Amino acid sequence: MNELVSSLLKQDLEGIKVILGKDPKAIMQRDEEGTEMASLAAKTGNLEIIKYIVEYSVASFNERDKKGRSCLHYGVESGNLQVVQYLTEKVGLSPVEGDCQGVTPYHLAMDREFLDIKEYFGAYLKADFEDMYQNPIRTGMFPDPSIVRVGEDYYMVNSSFVYFPCIPISHSKDLIHWEVIGHAITNPAWSYLEGLEGGRGYWAPDISYNEGRFYITATYRLNDGGEVLRKQIVVSSDKPEGPYTKPTFIDEDGIDPSIFTDDDGRRYMLLNRGARIFEISKDGTQKLSEPVLLYYGDQKRAPEGPHLLKKDGWYYLFLAEGGTGRGHRISVVRSKNLFGNYETCPYNPIMTQTDMDKTLQCCGHGKPVMTQNNEWYMVYLCNRYIDGKYGILGRETAMDPITWTADGWPIVNNLKGPSVLMKKPSLPEHIFNTSDLDSFEKEELNKEWMTVRSWKEGGICVQNGYLCLKGSRFEMNDIGAENLCLRRQKNFSFDMVVKMKLPKLQEEQNAGVISFYDENTYLKYGIYKNAEDAYELRIFEKIDAVERFAYSQLLPRTGGEYPQEIYLKTQVRNLKRSFFFSMDKKNWIVTGELNNVYYLCSEGIVKGKRFTGATVGLYAFGGSQELYSYFTDFEYISIE
Amino acid sequence: MNELVSSLLKQDLEGIKVILGKDPKAIMQRDEEGTEMASLAAKTGNLEIIKYIVEYSVASFNERDKKGRSCLHYGVESGNLQVVQYLTEKVGLSPVEGDCQGVTPYHLAMDREFLDIKEYFGAYLKADFEDMYQNPIRTGMFPDPSIVRVGEDYYMVNSSFVYFPCIPISHSKDLIHWEVIGHAITNPAWSYLEGLEGGRGYWAPDISYNEGRFYITATYRLNDGGEVLRKQIVVSSDKPEGPYTKPTFIDEDGIDPSIFTDDDGRRYMLLNRGARIFEISKDGTQKLSEPVLLYYGDQKRAPEGPHLLKKDGWYYLFLAEGGTGRGHRISVVRSKNLFGNYETCPYNPIMTQTDMDKTLQCCGHGKPVMTQNNEWYMVYLCNRYIDGKYGILGRETAMDPITWTADGWPIVNNLKGPSVLMKKPSLPEHIFNTSDLDSFEKEELNKEWMTVRSWKEGGICVQNGYLCLKGSRFEMNDIGAENLCLRRQKNFSFDMVVKMKLPKLQEEQNAGVISFYDENTYLKYGIYKNAEDAYELRIFEKIDAVERFAYSQLLPRTGGEYPQEIYLKTQVRNLKRSFFFSMDKKNWIVTGELNNVYYLCSEGIVKGKRFTGATVGLYAFGGSQELYSYFTDFEYISIE
Repeated sequence: MNELVSSLLKQDLEGIKVILGKDPKAIMQRDEEGTEMASLAAKTGNLEIIKYIVEYSVASFNERDKKGRSCLHYGVESGNLQVVQYLTEKVGLSPVEGDCQGVTPYHLAMDREFLDIKEYFGAYLKADFEDMYQNPIRTGMFPDPSIVRVGEDYYMVNSSFVYFPCIPISHSKDLIHWEVIGHAITNPAWSYLEGLEGGRGYWAPDISYNEGRFYITATYRLNDGGEVLRKQIVVSSDKPEGPYTKPTFIDEDGIDPSIFTDDDGRRYMLLNRGARIFEISKDGTQKLSEPVLLYYGDQKRAPEGPHLLKKDGWYYLFLAEGGTGRGHRISVVRSKNLFGNYETCPYNPIMTQTDMDKTLQCCGHGKPVMTQNNEWYMVYLCNRYIDGKYGILGRETAMDPITWTADGWPIVNNLKGPSVLMKKPSLPEHIFNTSDLDSFEKEELNKEWMTVRSWKEGGICVQNGYLCLKGSRFEMNDIGAENLCLRRQKNFSFDMVVKMKLPKLQEEQNAGVISFYDENTYLKYGIYKNAEDAYELRIFEKIDAVERFAYSQLLPRTGGEYPQEIYLKTQVRNLKRSFFFSMDKKNWIVTGELNNVYYLCSEGIVKGKRFTGATVGLYAFGGSQELYSYFTDFEYISIE
Repeated sequence: MNELVSSLLKQDLEGIKVILGKDPKAIMQRDEEGTEMASLAAKTGNLEIIKYIVEYSVASFNERDKKGRSCLHYGVESGNLQVVQYLTEKVGLSPVEGDCQGVTPYHLAMDREFLDIKEYFGAYLKADFEDMYQNPIRTGMFPDPSIVRVGEDYYMVNSSFVYFPCIPISHSKDLIHWEVIGHAITNPAWSYLEGLEGGRGYWAPDISYNEGRFYITATYRLNDGGEVLRKQIVVSSDKPEGPYTKPTFIDEDGIDPSIFTDDDGRRYMLLNRGARIFEISKDGTQKLSEPVLLYYGDQKRAPEGPHLLKKDGWYYLFLAEGGTGRGHRISVVRSKNLFGNYETCPYNPIMTQTDMDKTLQCCGHGKPVMTQNNEWYMVYLCNRYIDGKYGILGRETAMDPITWTADGWPIVNNLKGPSVLMKKPSLPEHIFNTSDLDSFEKEELNKEWMTVRSWKEGGICVQNGYLCLKGSRFEMNDIGAENLCLRRQKNFSFDMVVKMKLPKLQEEQNAGVISFYDENTYLKYGIYKNAEDAYELRIFEKIDAVERFAYSQLLPRTGGEYPQEIYLKTQVRNLKRSFFFSMDKKNWIVTGELNNVYYLCSEGIVKGKRFTGATVGLYAFGGSQELYSYFTDFEYISIE
């Protein structure tokens, strides 16, 4: 242990002064665990020492330890309120700045039950811990959010790519709790998903409301190679949950359409690049003019996601820029006239993440919404990474407050970038009655379920408390694969358990659970029959060209008999997955364990359009022969 | 030449569409000279093609060519006003964004004499070209500016390190043109510079005005190794040019002192780290309280340069942060009470350079000033680099307008970072009558001259139109070196010419011109005598431990006689220096040429405190024997 660490731990201020007098830069060292000297000092809770280091040493207070924790995290750990106050008020460290995992000093005060510090933070932030929410507000694949308020109800749409039903519509009354209530396209004949590769399909929808009707527009993205790569669809309904009209196609190249209705009732579609605009018919189905460029953007790299807002005589144009990765951002420009000239906001980007070590990355592509209480919020997409690299959950939805500056510009989270802990909107809490257990008791499937490309007639049904999957004729790596029944992976760590009737298998048939990214990358944990006609559990990885049976395990018989039903469990811990089975849901037998399922992340391989996120669910592969596979009691148990 | 370049040059839009249809990313290529496809298109002046590329291709418009030029630079070159308008208004490219050399599209329109474009830019920017100024406003070593206005006069001080007289005081009436009018310390006995290494001495002064007196405070930085490294000095005078009082020392550690007088008349000194404050006596000579921390800073790395401003009931605290290099910045925080708590400005940093390819780098350390017409400006330091690496001119002074946002925050250049071309303040132009030729006709030396450490009695004098240097007893690499008579290098390219009486040299004596950074790094071009007692011109490089005679050239005789006077010329072109002599100032003989004098830059070697900049001037080395050396007609001819 070095001399300075030793003096810090002994709280020997005179000794510290002597050491730093000889070698001022000694304060910039870190201990063996990568912790700054100043943080070690804060952890002792000695106010005099921390003051000396702040005011006389060359320590920097924008430093973070390996976990991404600031000196204030350490100050909280000391339990000394005075140190916490000094670091908060004089050094300006934030109680709500998260580490790499989103843990803030406020969280630590709660966890450690330091009530005086908790109370101080509550007063300082004007928000009790219980009155705060965490970002992202919607975990798992909920990218490209668009939002609209009607009365006291909020509706959000997100991209769905090749998943069916297309374009989920979610509902909330408090902006924090959300429930999927319907989809923009529920009729398989209207989805046009057949033949599309993973990552194509419906991109970046927008929801708007005009004279009693909801309008949803989105880009329909075809496979590469054809003459037309992109068209825009419009659907409408007088009910937010639908059913919506058959999609109308507008043949204009571009992505990220949104619909804007001007005060004079004329309606327009906005599209990238930058913000191009053209007039559309009242019902949204006809293009009435040729597009013109309103404004290209502030940063001018990959400007997209245009949204117009008219407020106080200004047209505010919001753009997503920088590309949907690191450096993603939201910019705003404004004009007194719809067609310009637009002036850029001096505070651009009004939302972005500049710190690679923070939880929420790649923040951008937002749309503003005003509550019935005149509070403003921006919903936007973000990524969270495992090891700073693997965004297995795909792009999620976060939300932060918008402040209107006195000079009439909207800024998000006071330009501090994405928050991890934020005061809730002043809206009555409204929690939906959702369950992590799906026993398939209703005839209609829970709206969280989705299939890859359209539902086939008779392919999926609910019968007597079981979900019945008809075996797909094609393997899961084929874009003809059928009846893959999936849900978003919403947490880095969770357990998934399902009860399954032992299927009657022929030859190469198999069925079970699946972790799915796209047809190029997935992971099956299924029941097979081996050459001796015995049941086996097998784990199979598909990684682009690589197909690998990772593990197999014979299914045991009891008194010579196979069980009628078995339980399959997948245990997910970041990039590690472990697979178990059980006859009684009590005694679990391990089938195998995979340490790195990186290929379930967008970043895992480079192939096609990897813009979605990991999903988990159920599959049955029938091949040339018939197979019906029955599942029930599907449980998704998140581990936080 | 590739297919796309060829189609662009042919202005074949249909051909371009076909190429980009097959390979959208082709637009992201560059030609052999590193120019973007979009810029090539802009240069053709074809509006339809540039529109297509902006609105339908994946080109980014934040790209710059190797010279740092944007698509708008190329658009201007086309001479097509419509293209220029589209790129300016719709794509949002700026007419005043400089390339690596500070050349803006507005400059190009002027150079090319495109009067319609010049007129358009004038109307768009609401400023004719002639009404604009260029940054930096003060070139060469003018770091750490502090400014004060008294009536219609502006006074600035800058750091002077070990140069004497100490702390130049400059005067301006229009904020653009400046003249050195005096120094804070002119009495050698009060300078305490003897024995200090280069880069020590007087750091980051502040000038303020209170009840009829000017106050200058600065940090006196000693050599490393002693018990005290830093003290603060205060001097005052009732005349801006001085003479000032003998420095009073305040024994408090820290750098970057400034003096703030509150409305109640109480006076305070501010010091880093962050902003610490303590009360001082009315005359500035006594410390009346112990320092306390007002606020540490926004970015919290190397927070320094604190300046307080009271305005509209708020205490605004300005800080320099990030360290005086890349990432340097100005932040502001404010409080209703002097002692806090301070809130950070959401728009921080209110000035910084984020683009490594721009002319002005490392911008920070600023102080605001309000003109008599209620316009606000920030003076701040910046660096300009040769090849992005060698800041030979040292830290210079730039200026940009401050806007007060409607919510009462000061932002600089509307948060666009440092400008290269900016509308002049609404102040009557006031140009000083300065000459680039110094014929030493006045008894008093021009105030641009300075010596390294204090002036020695009888060391330097002006006699009959000559500057007479008494030969230094110590070599220029010794901190005892005397009578080095220097001026700031103010341009990347210039010629320096001086007429010199042929000196009477003994043994190792020599005299001539010098390019000087500090005692570790300099370059002499002097007259020596060789072993055969013949006069020689020699070029000598001192680079830390290396001492190198680079070139020598015998001085020719005419009819067996040496000339009585010769001219020495140094030609400076970025890092290249060429050395000439002449008998008649017409026919020049080359002595030698050095291609890379990197060691005259702060970045050249790592040793000591390299915070100054290159200087040029005159020297005479006498050694143990007497030597007097006479110079006149010193010319500094800048080449822009």
